[in-house]
Amino acid sequence: MVAVAESMSGEQVRALCRTSAFTEPTSGAARGYVQCNIVILPADIAKSFEEFCRLNPKPCPLLATSPTPGDPSLPALGTNIDIRYDIPRYRIWQKGALAEHRLHIAELWRDDFVAFALGCSFSFEEALLNAGIEVRNISEGVNVPMFRTNLDCTPAGIFTAKMVVSMRPMPPAQAIEAIQICSRYPSVHGAPIHFGDASQLGIEDLSQPDFGDPVSLNEDDVPVFWACGVTPQVALENAQPALAMTHEPGHMLVTDLKNVDLAEDR
Amino acid sequence: MVAVAESMSGEQVRALCRTSAFTEPTSGAARGYVQCNIVILPADIAKSFEEFCRLNPKPCPLLATSPTPGDPSLPALGTNIDIRYDIPRYRIWQKGALAEHRLHIAELWRDDFVAFALGCSFSFEEALLNAGIEVRNISEGVNVPMFRTNLDCTPAGIFTAKMVVSMRPMPPAQAIEAIQICSRYPSVHGAPIHFGDASQLGIEDLSQPDFGDPVSLNEDDVPVFWACGVTPQVALENAQPALAMTHEPGHMLVTDLKNVDLAEDR
Repeated sequence: MVAVAESMSGEQVRALCRTSAFTEPTSGAARGYVQCNIVILPADIAKSFEEFCRLNPKPCPLLATSPTPGDPSLPALGTNIDIRYDIPRYRIWQKGALAEHRLHIAELWRDDFVAFALGCSFSFEEALLNAGIEVRNISEGVNVPMFRTNLDCTPAGIFTAKMVVSMRPMPPAQAIEAIQICSRYPSVHGAPIHFGDASQLGIEDLSQPDFGDPVSLNEDDVPVFWACGVTPQVALENAQPALAMTHEPGHMLVTDLKNVDLAEDR
Repeated sequence: MVAVAESMSGEQVRALCRTSAFTEPTSGAARGYVQCNIVILPADIAKSFEEFCRLNPKPCPLLATSPTPGDPSLPALGTNIDIRYDIPRYRIWQKGALAEHRLHIAELWRDDFVAFALGCSFSFEEALLNAGIEVRNISEGVNVPMFRTNLDCTPAGIFTAKMVVSMRPMPPAQAIEAIQICSRYPSVHGAPIHFGDASQLGIEDLSQPDFGDPVSLNEDDVPVFWACGVTPQVALENAQPALAMTHEPGHMLVTDLKNVDLAEDR
């Protein structure tokens, strides 16, 4: 394994992914560059999935799609991207169930595949850290805790899902600042959707996340909940398409875009 | 008493105040126009008070001051304002204690008086209502509940104060939206400073406000706390200047500015 420096560019990280010289989680790699969740679907259901993203922009903030079905580039996100190779690890889904893990998907690629790149919480976590706000999952060195909620996403075609949320605990004054900061980043989940009483979202136990790892809550903390990019994977589980491909969680597409460029002006 | 229509302009309301044809609270009058808290001080301590406002912009958002000591106009806020007459009711303070109520202060006016106009929560309450957010004190027809906190303002000269906050209960999702909206209005107290556990501010009982009236909290509500324009009156109580004048609470200066013009662009 090659160490992927914080100081590398997105293009440099992708070059290592392309040859499978780098196959690890991308958290902390190419600091400042936008990283994306990836979903790849056949064209016949891609239209419905695009509609699902459009109707549910907080869990599914769509940053880019393939220019045409079968084209493995994503020119809106970077030069020379080849989505068949440029992620460290892939998941292959069959009828909504995880079937296989791969380091690239070149042999599986088809002329009717469409790739979707969705914004990721890494971008707003960087903005929070830059503002001096502690991000508990980062300071504790674990994956962010994520929970299935009782909130229905707006369905589109075969795609339906209860929203998945990520949770970051912090004191109320920092939560207010986090809401202000994240409001400027609608393309990476935007402002939190809830804080405080988890049972209002149908979450029973904050120490038992459905995905990721639990984190500590300090006495003055409130849990703050953001719409989460795992939601589209739940939509895939429900829709059970014959074939779908995604990134392995945490193993994102690193783009040429900068996080600061996602910020809307105040 | 003359009814002060919602549809009047700021200048029309002031014209009625000038002759004491209108002496009631200004809430609901001249909808859309900015209303201000007023503090009038002798020039020798005005500089310190201005500094106090500059250092504590959330409780004391300074919108305008007299052009020169003794000048009763406030041209930054409207044409033809005469601060000696244009508020429905005044309070006269001596050595930090409320000494007298008046309908105008022309006989007391001196060449060394400086008027300070501070932003008021009416402006952001209008923005919240326009966004479909229930403002509990308005729907229950009472004065907003206000509480003394354990938060120290930054002192300036003789002026010191624990911050006073106003409290509006709402469900978390609306609180997030309220934070987003109020962040755009820094000149009228801006974003809330706290939500949730009142004891973190040193508040013991939300049903016993120090100023104003209690309001109902529904089951899914969290209390949301904003820095409050009563804070400068606490600073006056502490500083005990020989003479000071303020508006009677709720009886504000109605200006020619529009609330929408206070909004910072997103």
